[in-house]
Amino acid sequence: MPETAPGFAVIGKSAPMLDGKARVSGLAVYTADMTLPGMLYGKVLHSTVPHARIVRIDTSRAGALPGVHAVVVGNEFPNRYGILPIGHDEAAIAVDKVRYIGDNVAAVAADTEAIADEALRLVQVEYAPLRAWFDAEESMRAERDLIHDDRPHNIEKHYSHNFGDVDTAFARAHLVREDRFRCPAVTHAAMEPHATLAAMQIDGGITVWSSTQVPYYLQRTIANVLEMPESAVRVIKPAVGGGFGGKSEVCPLEVIAAMLSKKCGRPVRITYSREEVFFTHRGRPSQIVDLKTGVDRDGKILAVAAATIQDGGAFCGYGPVTVLYSGNLLAGIYQIENLRYDGFRVLTNKPSCGAMRGHGTVNMRFAFESQLDMIASQLGIDPVEMRRRNLLKPPCFTVNNLRVTSYGFPECIDRVVEASGWRERKGKMPQGRGLGVAGSHYVTGAANPINRSDMPHSSVTLKADRDGAFTIYSGASDIGQGCDVMQVMIVAEVLGVDPSRVRLVAADTGTTPVDLGSYSSRVTFMCGNAAKRAAEELKKEIYRVSAEAQKASGKPIPQNFDEALRLALEASGVIVAHGHYAPPEAARGGHFKGAGVGPSPSYSYSAQVAEVVVDEETGEVRIEKIWAAHDCGRALNPVAVEGQVIGSVSMGLGQALQEEMIWRNGFLMNPGLLEYRSPASCDAASPDIESFIVESIDPEGPFGAKEASEGSLAASIPAVANAIYDAVGVRIMELPLTPEKILRALKQKKKAAA
Amino acid sequence: MPETAPGFAVIGKSAPMLDGKARVSGLAVYTADMTLPGMLYGKVLHSTVPHARIVRIDTSRAGALPGVHAVVVGNEFPNRYGILPIGHDEAAIAVDKVRYIGDNVAAVAADTEAIADEALRLVQVEYAPLRAWFDAEESMRAERDLIHDDRPHNIEKHYSHNFGDVDTAFARAHLVREDRFRCPAVTHAAMEPHATLAAMQIDGGITVWSSTQVPYYLQRTIANVLEMPESAVRVIKPAVGGGFGGKSEVCPLEVIAAMLSKKCGRPVRITYSREEVFFTHRGRPSQIVDLKTGVDRDGKILAVAAATIQDGGAFCGYGPVTVLYSGNLLAGIYQIENLRYDGFRVLTNKPSCGAMRGHGTVNMRFAFESQLDMIASQLGIDPVEMRRRNLLKPPCFTVNNLRVTSYGFPECIDRVVEASGWRERKGKMPQGRGLGVAGSHYVTGAANPINRSDMPHSSVTLKADRDGAFTIYSGASDIGQGCDVMQVMIVAEVLGVDPSRVRLVAADTGTTPVDLGSYSSRVTFMCGNAAKRAAEELKKEIYRVSAEAQKASGKPIPQNFDEALRLALEASGVIVAHGHYAPPEAARGGHFKGAGVGPSPSYSYSAQVAEVVVDEETGEVRIEKIWAAHDCGRALNPVAVEGQVIGSVSMGLGQALQEEMIWRNGFLMNPGLLEYRSPASCDAASPDIESFIVESIDPEGPFGAKEASEGSLAASIPAVANAIYDAVGVRIMELPLTPEKILRALKQKKKAAA
Repeated sequence: MPETAPGFAVIGKSAPMLDGKARVSGLAVYTADMTLPGMLYGKVLHSTVPHARIVRIDTSRAGALPGVHAVVVGNEFPNRYGILPIGHDEAAIAVDKVRYIGDNVAAVAADTEAIADEALRLVQVEYAPLRAWFDAEESMRAERDLIHDDRPHNIEKHYSHNFGDVDTAFARAHLVREDRFRCPAVTHAAMEPHATLAAMQIDGGITVWSSTQVPYYLQRTIANVLEMPESAVRVIKPAVGGGFGGKSEVCPLEVIAAMLSKKCGRPVRITYSREEVFFTHRGRPSQIVDLKTGVDRDGKILAVAAATIQDGGAFCGYGPVTVLYSGNLLAGIYQIENLRYDGFRVLTNKPSCGAMRGHGTVNMRFAFESQLDMIASQLGIDPVEMRRRNLLKPPCFTVNNLRVTSYGFPECIDRVVEASGWRERKGKMPQGRGLGVAGSHYVTGAANPINRSDMPHSSVTLKADRDGAFTIYSGASDIGQGCDVMQVMIVAEVLGVDPSRVRLVAADTGTTPVDLGSYSSRVTFMCGNAAKRAAEELKKEIYRVSAEAQKASGKPIPQNFDEALRLALEASGVIVAHGHYAPPEAARGGHFKGAGVGPSPSYSYSAQVAEVVVDEETGEVRIEKIWAAHDCGRALNPVAVEGQVIGSVSMGLGQALQEEMIWRNGFLMNPGLLEYRSPASCDAASPDIESFIVESIDPEGPFGAKEASEGSLAASIPAVANAIYDAVGVRIMELPLTPEKILRALKQKKKAAA
Repeated sequence: MPETAPGFAVIGKSAPMLDGKARVSGLAVYTADMTLPGMLYGKVLHSTVPHARIVRIDTSRAGALPGVHAVVVGNEFPNRYGILPIGHDEAAIAVDKVRYIGDNVAAVAADTEAIADEALRLVQVEYAPLRAWFDAEESMRAERDLIHDDRPHNIEKHYSHNFGDVDTAFARAHLVREDRFRCPAVTHAAMEPHATLAAMQIDGGITVWSSTQVPYYLQRTIANVLEMPESAVRVIKPAVGGGFGGKSEVCPLEVIAAMLSKKCGRPVRITYSREEVFFTHRGRPSQIVDLKTGVDRDGKILAVAAATIQDGGAFCGYGPVTVLYSGNLLAGIYQIENLRYDGFRVLTNKPSCGAMRGHGTVNMRFAFESQLDMIASQLGIDPVEMRRRNLLKPPCFTVNNLRVTSYGFPECIDRVVEASGWRERKGKMPQGRGLGVAGSHYVTGAANPINRSDMPHSSVTLKADRDGAFTIYSGASDIGQGCDVMQVMIVAEVLGVDPSRVRLVAADTGTTPVDLGSYSSRVTFMCGNAAKRAAEELKKEIYRVSAEAQKASGKPIPQNFDEALRLALEASGVIVAHGHYAPPEAARGGHFKGAGVGPSPSYSYSAQVAEVVVDEETGEVRIEKIWAAHDCGRALNPVAVEGQVIGSVSMGLGQALQEEMIWRNGFLMNPGLLEYRSPASCDAASPDIESFIVESIDPEGPFGAKEASEGSLAASIPAVANAIYDAVGVRIMELPLTPEKILRALKQKKKAAA
């Protein structure tokens, strides 16, 4: 790879994260590291029952304990919040009833953590139990003891879409397959547990430092719950140790810390234990996928009918988006001219699911790419060829009006096929060793914000000041993905200056302009475009001001940027400019906009080949290698793209092979990293992941860039499942792909063969 | 007074300081309140000799003490700093030689203050003494052992100006008086001692929180001394507990904290003891004034020849400005058509003098207003009448090209004459009780910045964001004078919104645009103009963006501001604008600009009447009342103006009656608040100070505002001296006006009468 992309000075040259040194040296300040004079420790009392009315809460003994400064219960701050306008059903502390084991019942602020713990033990809660719903299919039949009174049958959301003429297409299909796939709930397991420090100010405002992906949503929510103007709430995002979607909604502790601080007028910090992080969840739902696909003799897809039931947990959260993306994004990678979708988001008495890396697409992609291989096998078509026969032909609009303008998927396939030696090796390897291929794609942010239509997507202001230095003010939140340095690179590239001259102030609602947050892989695209526009505006303004000043004094107009900058600063002190971005109308889903098809201004593509070795004695799967090609439009910062791809694949392999939230009567049985078994560093180090960057140069993205942090994950799981099939001839249709399931399938296969 | 000025919604209505509640409740965070993880305590070793070469410093034992993390001596960071381009002679820690008792010799950073103290005791310094110069007149004759090698005769600066034809005017004068006046050194004695917290960042930058009036100067100095780009140095001003000029230059601890932090890579905080604050000084110099004034038969001033020697201490500092203002501002209050000035700024082996409230004008005004009374007495003219006969006739340029465009001095005189019952009571009071009048004036910032001509005077950026709220980004430093709320008021007034919708981010070089600092009473005028322009630009931009958006969608253009704002924010996300201010060419001194006459874009005026009772047995003076009228152009925030006037008078009374730095062989004998005797709260409460606001509506100031925080001080001292003369017939020509001096004068008077 050349040091920079051709024609660029900065773009395309790998650059470390701005706070990289601070992170690796331990000097980065995370929320849990912060203290303030007079700071108290907040702790939350969690429900021990899954579904019950709260008859009585007695906090008098807790409040009387020396060293306790505030005790708060739900009805003191009853304003509900949630994702506007879809769901608005949450209170940080339960009001009237609890809905899952771990639900928040009361909270205290005390001089020490030990006193806070003691105070929690003194809170007495009397519950009147209700029937609890733990299974989504059962919950859908509920007639009484509903989880939310305004959701009949505990159905949070039902999408039913029909694009094209699905039944006619099935009728003329050569082969129609119907399969059921199952995926368990998995969660983010970010290294940093959630933490929030809230400090009421004497002027009636509140400042909140929080481990969040969405400072501006948090600002709005706290304002709503505390009944303060938004401008009186300042949210600052310190260093964040990973989010992956788990911090992309407002989490209860963020609101509770603010409540406690408001109540006692002192700063209050809450740091969640790992168990509480699991209670907070918002991860990927347990999901049943019924997938029906019809193809012609050549393997060309004629129609797809997908139905899914998602076990969403106790609150709405981002659930409607999860279930929307599961169905409607199917059309965005392969040519599907007839598509039917029935998606149910069901409430249960468990922690709420939400957005998790690859939001909505991962489980469906496992199903689809698995079934595609099954069909290919039946038709005797090579799996790679099967995928090549069903490519989109962009630029195009899909049957449900998703606009695809850049499409590096074919090249992604080519790259991994070539690198893995697919043609030479596939089908020629010893028993127990196999190759599998899969594709995936993802949105580059939502074209129609699901939340707060009166907020611009991204905005950046930019200041030229003394010393020839530039300051970016950006609302975007770097949570470890590197969007801070991305903005510095874009601004430096546009201005033609060294990146060391560009500083960044970010993610502080008190000083930075609004940005929707770090989720849906939107930041590089939306905020990158805003930063690019701000820099372009600033450059124009610098030339304009300097030319004006020179004209006024009869001197020649400067042609050199640094000379123009010097003159402009002399004339005007400081030069400021602003850039903002919102996706164009054409990318918003056209006439299906109202149907909520979930369009994005751009889609990324991945292809992966997995090579596995399966031990037929133990069922154990060893990943030998993953070849992962990702079409990120343009790699603004190649090392960051590569890091995202490798991270995505690692996370995908965790879900593929071992991760699973295990429930028993509403109890999470494995609420710790030891039991939950995310890949540890030794797991992550063992498979050799080779990543390939494919640059399709998106016409709308900043310098052609698009999504690069989530899309890869979804291909890893089916690639492994398909490789297992290739290795030992068994098809596992339920995640994770554990040795037990493989052994069982091998036994059944033997039995059938016998 | 009406609630707001006529025609205004916000301006003219008293508003509390933004951090007023925090200050009075003890919640305001001053630098000394701050801690950071891993923070060390810095301490400075001070010279015990007044003038000596440093032969050897042995820090090995100090460095070896457990808990000591850094020891620093001068030659490690030898880059000199000071006021560009005038003086550039300082190092925070002495290099090669020490120049006063208290000079900085070494510094340490340690885990605790006790360890740091112990480490200082272990530093061994060997000095080779030089002759020390303590008396300015003697120092001017020095041939050897110069304090700075490049300053012959220890003369830092000599101004010699001649405007008009002074000798001819004296020749035709009816009366010429020549008198010598003496003033001792006085210092600021701000409540908050200096404190600095410096924290090197892992990215190679440094963040510095400091009790400073000049964050941007400090940023530049630290960059220079630490040899870092300015943009790598971030200076933040926390709450400051008073400056009065004492924090308007870079102080050694600010640089030393940065040096120590750079050396050990950990945050280092230094908080000065009160004794160290006295060592840092930068207060008003001890000064000899030889004043010669010629008047005609009617008391009309024909010529003034002033000569002064200022004892400046060991470094240049702002001294050249002190001595410049002493002479050249004489022309700015009374009509003086012929003016000669010889001003010497002399180096001595004492802490450096600098800027202190009323910088340069106070001692000269004591002399001038005293002598004016003496002349009036000789001519039998009433002191008020004497002043009225010598008024300026603005708009005008003075003989030395100071441009006076607003001049409320006559009205100030009228107000205090009327309120005090001057006409009825003067000369008719019992022996021992007297009335005295005096006038004063002051600049509204320097039209030609003494420092860094490539910096704009003031700049403000302004952001309109969600919630209909506005954020001001301002480089200006509120040090207790209320400039934060001033900016909020101006922006609210221009935008037509409630001030509660306007937030402020200030004095943080990392986020705010450049401002020269809080000194010379420049902030309301310069930064106020910048804020006003930013708000005007923002308003225009809001209407422009909203009109454009509405036109594009064929909808009507909004006429209402909040509607326009809503539409503009929807269209553009965030709206930003910028305003900056520099004084116009016409206010810069014209053809005398090169001669450094010290012009300002605007001058404020004060008149005061003092009523005193003098006990002829003890010499004790009791101030009965001060009537103080101040022309501040327009009182943007009347309570703030009134507070400044009362504060100025109080500080003036301290200098008039009791304050004095007492030296013996270079030792300061009273380096503590108990011994130095600034007025305590009981002293300040006892005289009844009645303040009158006079509004001359300056054509250049923001809404007509000009200086309101320093000018009043200078009138208080001569008003009291003149009142003492009126009460008991003795004229004290040396400050402070102590009982001893009064008794001695009374005795001499009796002896002469006998």
